[in-house]
Amino acid sequence: MKKSLGAKVLAFPAPVWVVGTYGKDSQPNIMTASWAGICCSKPPCIYVSLREATHSYHSIMARKAFTVSIPSANHVKEADFAGIASGKDTDKFAKLGLTSIKSELVDAPYVNEFPVVIECKLVNTVPLGLHTMFVGEIVDVKADESVLLENGKPSIGSVNPFLYDTGQMKYWSIGQELSNAFEKEGKF
Amino acid sequence: MKKSLGAKVLAFPAPVWVVGTYGKDSQPNIMTASWAGICCSKPPCIYVSLREATHSYHSIMARKAFTVSIPSANHVKEADFAGIASGKDTDKFAKLGLTSIKSELVDAPYVNEFPVVIECKLVNTVPLGLHTMFVGEIVDVKADESVLLENGKPSIGSVNPFLYDTGQMKYWSIGQELSNAFEKEGKF
Repeated sequence: MKKSLGAKVLAFPAPVWVVGTYGKDSQPNIMTASWAGICCSKPPCIYVSLREATHSYHSIMARKAFTVSIPSANHVKEADFAGIASGKDTDKFAKLGLTSIKSELVDAPYVNEFPVVIECKLVNTVPLGLHTMFVGEIVDVKADESVLLENGKPSIGSVNPFLYDTGQMKYWSIGQELSNAFEKEGKF
Repeated sequence: MKKSLGAKVLAFPAPVWVVGTYGKDSQPNIMTASWAGICCSKPPCIYVSLREATHSYHSIMARKAFTVSIPSANHVKEADFAGIASGKDTDKFAKLGLTSIKSELVDAPYVNEFPVVIECKLVNTVPLGLHTMFVGEIVDVKADESVLLENGKPSIGSVNPFLYDTGQMKYWSIGQELSNAFEKEGKF
């Protein structure tokens, strides 16, 4: 018998992604989002859900583009700060000592110090209530060579992304490999 | 200097959620989705992205409802199987020895053996290409009492959800608590 907890966003796990945009004066800005994920394989799409009250919301609306830079666990404090301060009155790149790189493919900046970045053009805007989903088609993924395995794909262990725990409002690390996915043989 | 990997869904981390639906003959069915996440706080909403080729896609279209049951790492094999076999020709609940519980709130079943379940009514359908996003408003979250902390919220460590690694197509466990989120004082 399960206990009812009410209509709340208690879902695990949520990613911690840093959304890069340009503001009105082409000021590079970042904000952290955990209402975010992959939403289509072909075309490859991810989304971030932002509140209209945020600076980044209006930047995405204006520029029709955003990036996602995936922080490693050693940047948990920077990511947390980027989710609290506003680009309206704070140059978060400068404050955090992070380097803004202008994407050559979309009208948005990304974070050089984070190991994987995803460049997106806005293809869908879905207002849902407090949050609006911005669906971006992935134009390119870029990664530090240090996190790539021999097959050319990034190693999640080397990227070392972290999670947001919606229950206790904490950040959690990833753990260890459990098994391959799509194992068709001999399980049941 | 980052290396370009192309336009691919290489984003970390992705959740592993099990979507519960009723098919044509009210046959309870589950399928595993990692293109899934939280997308709005008010009203509380999550989404799952499914291919039209799946049985579950048509069930959600017909019933306007779905559940998400969050498996623990000890059910990684069951979750993997539920993402491979089709409800068209397989009774996955029976095959996996899992128990289907009929939601009293929405027209969909959930998995009794998984510690947290989320009951959703369909509020938005967003076709994107190979995948269609189904946005569900959360009507209730239910959890086993064994995973609840004193504040009444589930412990991510006790739920022990796991992740999908889009790079190497493997499942990964969660690790450890890193820090509180929304720490306003004294970092920068």
